[in-house]
Amino acid sequence: MALIFVTSNRHKFEEVSELAARHGIELEHRGTPYIEIQADNLEDVVRPSAQQACALLKQPCFVEDAGLFVQALRGFPGPYSNFVFRTLGNEGLLKLMAGETDRRAEFRSAVGYCEPGQRPEVFTGKVKGTIAPEARGMRGFGFDPIFLVENMDKTFGEMEISEKNKFSHRAQAIEAFFSWYEQREKA
Amino acid sequence: MALIFVTSNRHKFEEVSELAARHGIELEHRGTPYIEIQADNLEDVVRPSAQQACALLKQPCFVEDAGLFVQALRGFPGPYSNFVFRTLGNEGLLKLMAGETDRRAEFRSAVGYCEPGQRPEVFTGKVKGTIAPEARGMRGFGFDPIFLVENMDKTFGEMEISEKNKFSHRAQAIEAFFSWYEQREKA
Repeated sequence: MALIFVTSNRHKFEEVSELAARHGIELEHRGTPYIEIQADNLEDVVRPSAQQACALLKQPCFVEDAGLFVQALRGFPGPYSNFVFRTLGNEGLLKLMAGETDRRAEFRSAVGYCEPGQRPEVFTGKVKGTIAPEARGMRGFGFDPIFLVENMDKTFGEMEISEKNKFSHRAQAIEAFFSWYEQREKA
Repeated sequence: MALIFVTSNRHKFEEVSELAARHGIELEHRGTPYIEIQADNLEDVVRPSAQQACALLKQPCFVEDAGLFVQALRGFPGPYSNFVFRTLGNEGLLKLMAGETDRRAEFRSAVGYCEPGQRPEVFTGKVKGTIAPEARGMRGFGFDPIFLVENMDKTFGEMEISEKNKFSHRAQAIEAFFSWYEQREKA
């Protein structure tokens, strides 16, 4: 049976599809709109979202939420990265970081999986890096072009999906979920 | 019977208390935590919040949400003003506006009132102004010190509660709610 990924973001679906293919997992896309609550932690955001998406579809499904947490900005834009990207963009975030020497940041991801009548399961991943001095690369989406991955001279915007999927926050959360899911299917 | 205002913000409670006193409405404070959803419009945020707060208290009650919408920043920080104030503060918003000539902004408020078993009622208010070149005044809360009210050379941070309550976004939404509420009590 195909595993349902509920998202309105085609970039996310592409990334997760590549990971699913490696596991031989068949992925099905649904664009069903679900509610996201306001919370400082992504885990608290995806738990009710997965539950609601599952209640709407009446089938097992998963959702994913990600955010960029900048140290010097006390975790901004964090869980509101989508809204902040739509309003301020990479340019706005670079302006906020002008003159800032502590450029440490983390991309975090949380996956919520839910089956009808069950409590949701949550899986997380994160990757460390810094805010680049300027946007680089046209790949990825959102803040990818201004996120320089730790120990690499590359932004997420300069990576193919297959490279980003080797260590990205989303790949880690999804891999944790897929491992759990596969173990469970075997049991 | 006292009217229950559910909020964790003591500044809001003080402002609304002053308005309630003028109407002879007895206000009761509850700090019950309720969920706020992510949405670009405050109306969409307060509707489910009022419903949830009412379901938790099993009594009629109201909630209020407000935000600062900056024109040149495409509505940022909008419904996420609380989080943005906690992370970037007035300083961060001023940095984003550095060199920006279009400094127009709006403070908006939405009140959600709900009675057990009923759909929530929503009331709104807004006030125009500009983002000040620098923070002024120690009164109010949040972005009040950097919001210059249209046709006045004063920020909300430089006003007593009674002055702010003459025309603020929150006062307008609350007045609309109180008028409706009083009419209804009479009927």
